[in-house]
Amino acid sequence: MECGSYQLIKKSSECKARLGKVYTTRGIIDTPVFMPVGTHGTVKGIAIEFLHNSKAAIILGNSYHLYLRPGTEVIKKAGGIQKFNSWNKPLLTDSGGFQVFSLSDTRKISEEGVEFRSHIDGSKHFFSPEKSMQVQKDIGADIIMCFDECTPYPADYSYAKNSMELSLKWAKRCKLEFYKDASYQKQALFGIVQGSIYNDLRKISVNEMLNIGFTGYAIGGLSVGEPKEYMYDVLETTLPTIPENKARYLMGVGMPEDLWEGVQRGIDMFDCVIPTRNGRNGQVFTSFGKINIRNKEYIQDFSPLDPECNCPTCQGYTKAYLNHLVRAQETLYLMLLSLHNIYFMVNLMSKIRKSLENDTFLNSKKEFFEKYYFRK
Amino acid sequence: MECGSYQLIKKSSECKARLGKVYTTRGIIDTPVFMPVGTHGTVKGIAIEFLHNSKAAIILGNSYHLYLRPGTEVIKKAGGIQKFNSWNKPLLTDSGGFQVFSLSDTRKISEEGVEFRSHIDGSKHFFSPEKSMQVQKDIGADIIMCFDECTPYPADYSYAKNSMELSLKWAKRCKLEFYKDASYQKQALFGIVQGSIYNDLRKISVNEMLNIGFTGYAIGGLSVGEPKEYMYDVLETTLPTIPENKARYLMGVGMPEDLWEGVQRGIDMFDCVIPTRNGRNGQVFTSFGKINIRNKEYIQDFSPLDPECNCPTCQGYTKAYLNHLVRAQETLYLMLLSLHNIYFMVNLMSKIRKSLENDTFLNSKKEFFEKYYFRK
Repeated sequence: MECGSYQLIKKSSECKARLGKVYTTRGIIDTPVFMPVGTHGTVKGIAIEFLHNSKAAIILGNSYHLYLRPGTEVIKKAGGIQKFNSWNKPLLTDSGGFQVFSLSDTRKISEEGVEFRSHIDGSKHFFSPEKSMQVQKDIGADIIMCFDECTPYPADYSYAKNSMELSLKWAKRCKLEFYKDASYQKQALFGIVQGSIYNDLRKISVNEMLNIGFTGYAIGGLSVGEPKEYMYDVLETTLPTIPENKARYLMGVGMPEDLWEGVQRGIDMFDCVIPTRNGRNGQVFTSFGKINIRNKEYIQDFSPLDPECNCPTCQGYTKAYLNHLVRAQETLYLMLLSLHNIYFMVNLMSKIRKSLENDTFLNSKKEFFEKYYFRK
Repeated sequence: MECGSYQLIKKSSECKARLGKVYTTRGIIDTPVFMPVGTHGTVKGIAIEFLHNSKAAIILGNSYHLYLRPGTEVIKKAGGIQKFNSWNKPLLTDSGGFQVFSLSDTRKISEEGVEFRSHIDGSKHFFSPEKSMQVQKDIGADIIMCFDECTPYPADYSYAKNSMELSLKWAKRCKLEFYKDASYQKQALFGIVQGSIYNDLRKISVNEMLNIGFTGYAIGGLSVGEPKEYMYDVLETTLPTIPENKARYLMGVGMPEDLWEGVQRGIDMFDCVIPTRNGRNGQVFTSFGKINIRNKEYIQDFSPLDPECNCPTCQGYTKAYLNHLVRAQETLYLMLLSLHNIYFMVNLMSKIRKSLENDTFLNSKKEFFEKYYFRK
């Protein structure tokens, strides 16, 4: 099967949710899937061995960060990102677009591309659609993304339209550059639908992206501060246009509730820094809702974070001990809490897939939320 | 066998080195042994599972830190430190003396004990020999230590003498307090020899400690800034006085070279924060000497830290990747480098024990140093 291709296994009889598989050079991914984020090629705080055990099927790396540090030359010499970081399963890189716009210092945007200064040392760099493709080819992920502008929120209609049109022009150049050499035999290129919260712009974007033609399609520019209803609306407007035999990826999303809502509307892939970022702040997902392990009530709580969780943290440690680690600023907590949160997301997606197998998605969703929001 | 008791297995025909076993409530420790330090009850950055795999036989916890955070009440309620931190093998606690003198804010020393302020929140506390025993009983380690003053270096003769005499008085009170209830059936109390670099004071201290009588004996107040020769001299003066059937523990030591020198003079147990502290600074022990993984020369070095090491870091990652983690300030490096250094120390002690089994200690020492100091 072509890298990045999607196989539909089963559709829900109740909604747009779907069970499927995404084929990649380094393995087959059961979807819907959650992808933990490894900004610098490493999921923050988690040794690869633990990540493997979590059953995470695919992780994400950030091209902007990897380009600046350690640099594509090092990764290329190592034999690609999965040789470099010892993660020998599927990996997806974003294009660098989001970070160039949001993280870098002073930047100049033109149709040609974006000139920016590194947030690390102020050095000057230039990213264009072509450059992003070259960087992502050197990094060597299984799935790579078009270089685009992630339209900020709020954006007025005119800004959103221009931004969406620029991303379309760039998408064409990305495709040309991508198919220039034989990389495409091992990597897949996904297009990204933009258009902010304007449904007519989203429709133009998705149709034009389909005209250009990509192996898979992402919905970008969501979960950037807009009310959730807008996100659902964009998904309902956009996804039905995308052919059934293509993977749909909701970028930068999300929270447990977003995963259910996204899947219900037809999303196959998600990524988010939430499990690791929350872990670093002491915030933990459990079957009975979110908790902050730093809270006083856990000082003498000798039960695990989540009695239903099979992660090493829940199997090996109590809330009291984790509370102590956070209060004593022992770095071990970064790893133990992040790992638990990753297991939580991966296990949640596994539950969602199971409900799709049994065609009980809506009921499973209801049960999940009853427990998640109404804990004693 | 009584907890803390020592069994001599074999003496070197070449020097004072000896192979033995220390019996504890939670397991038998092959000696000579290196004990990684877990200040807050956790070896910094290392998940218990990894620590078990490293074959570390015993770890150390700091009473001062555990008393302040999470507090002995929490640990006692958890069922003792090894229930609390999930480390179900032997553990030794120090008395809190060293930290009360070196870490706490404003303190008042009297023969009764030490009044001090917490370095965390400035709250006022009082440690006496009796209090230290109570704290260490509540923590519940297998081996606990007498409350003493770790004489600073340099100390003039008069200061060193008074300090040593105070520690003797305190040692008597520790023993009385320790045997008050049935704890001693599960815990062992070790005495600590002081006297700074003054051999006559060390002789008085060791003889008086033997008169009081403890299950094992530590040599304290070394590796505090004095030239190495002084340390060797104190060991040569002190150790022959201690009966063969008692464990000898050199506190707070040390570097790989110190382990060889200590064992050669008759030491059975060592502890040091060096493996984890160095790891946090990017400094790594290898069979071919110390390196700092942050150095430029490792940016494109795709070999492991130490080709002779069996640790997960060396088995799973390259120097280039570790260099990247340090430079990108990815916390995973804390764990990977600390873990490697712990394996290095544990494996070194295993080599030393092997050489004692084969009665080739001096030759093995020579071979180790030839490689360690003369790498290309």
